[in-house]
Amino acid sequence: MTEGVEIERKFLVERPPADLDAHPSREIEQGYLAITDDVEVRVRRYGDHSFLTVKSSGNESRIEEEIKIEGRRFDALWPLTDGRRVEKRRYAIPAPGGLTIELDVYHGRLSGLLTAEIEFESLADATSFDPPGWLGPDVTDDPRYKNKRLATQGLPA
Amino acid sequence: MTEGVEIERKFLVERPPADLDAHPSREIEQGYLAITDDVEVRVRRYGDHSFLTVKSSGNESRIEEEIKIEGRRFDALWPLTDGRRVEKRRYAIPAPGGLTIELDVYHGRLSGLLTAEIEFESLADATSFDPPGWLGPDVTDDPRYKNKRLATQGLPA
Repeated sequence: MTEGVEIERKFLVERPPADLDAHPSREIEQGYLAITDDVEVRVRRYGDHSFLTVKSSGNESRIEEEIKIEGRRFDALWPLTDGRRVEKRRYAIPAPGGLTIELDVYHGRLSGLLTAEIEFESLADATSFDPPGWLGPDVTDDPRYKNKRLATQGLPA
Repeated sequence: MTEGVEIERKFLVERPPADLDAHPSREIEQGYLAITDDVEVRVRRYGDHSFLTVKSSGNESRIEEEIKIEGRRFDALWPLTDGRRVEKRRYAIPAPGGLTIELDVYHGRLSGLLTAEIEFESLADATSFDPPGWLGPDVTDDPRYKNKRLATQGLPA
């Protein structure tokens, strides 16, 4: 999830597939402990796994370290992310061409938002991707839907 | 090092004992990744051990999690602490009454500073402690000699 450059597209979703609950899903809780000019520190629980990640926020040489932590540490640190959280359930939905659509249904302060992400092997695959009808507007390059922005600013107006 | 309340006294040192190098010592490198109103995140290498610590900086219910990390992670994160570091060699010097004086000889930006800390079992022991002649002024309550202040502001004027 953190190695190399990901080729992804992101869409808004207004109405998810009717059989949503038939697909495997995991709860994701992500919160920022600290955001400074230089550094971001966040904790993330993904199903049964918890991580603490430190990232440089500068533009030059990018540093990112993802450290696996115990669930009890996640629980202890979570209160420090108050007001800087993204909470969502992620569904894995198969799509043509062996692709997987990751549909995120947000809770908490972001309740009502649904987004879908698809990761591609190449830029050519990404541009030629023909989205199924239930995917809404492409927001791949819209900064308002970045995780950090959603966590700190909430739902786009 | 992080459980409960420590009873400590801290002194400035102008001239360390002549036999300093006869005492066991370890290098300590500590740097802040992020300092915000709510949270501090720092990395620390103490001899062969490395840690990442997240602390609430608020006054109410205090949260502190010290996470052991691999040396290679410390190395990767260290550049992100530039300008917010304390680097020192800590000598353990025995003192009467089974006490240990931890003498810190600072390097880098803090070069020239020497401090000594002694940890006590009780407040009574701390107040009745008779410092050896080589310990200078008591700076236990002087905020200028706190680690965070030294790391971010450098040597007191």
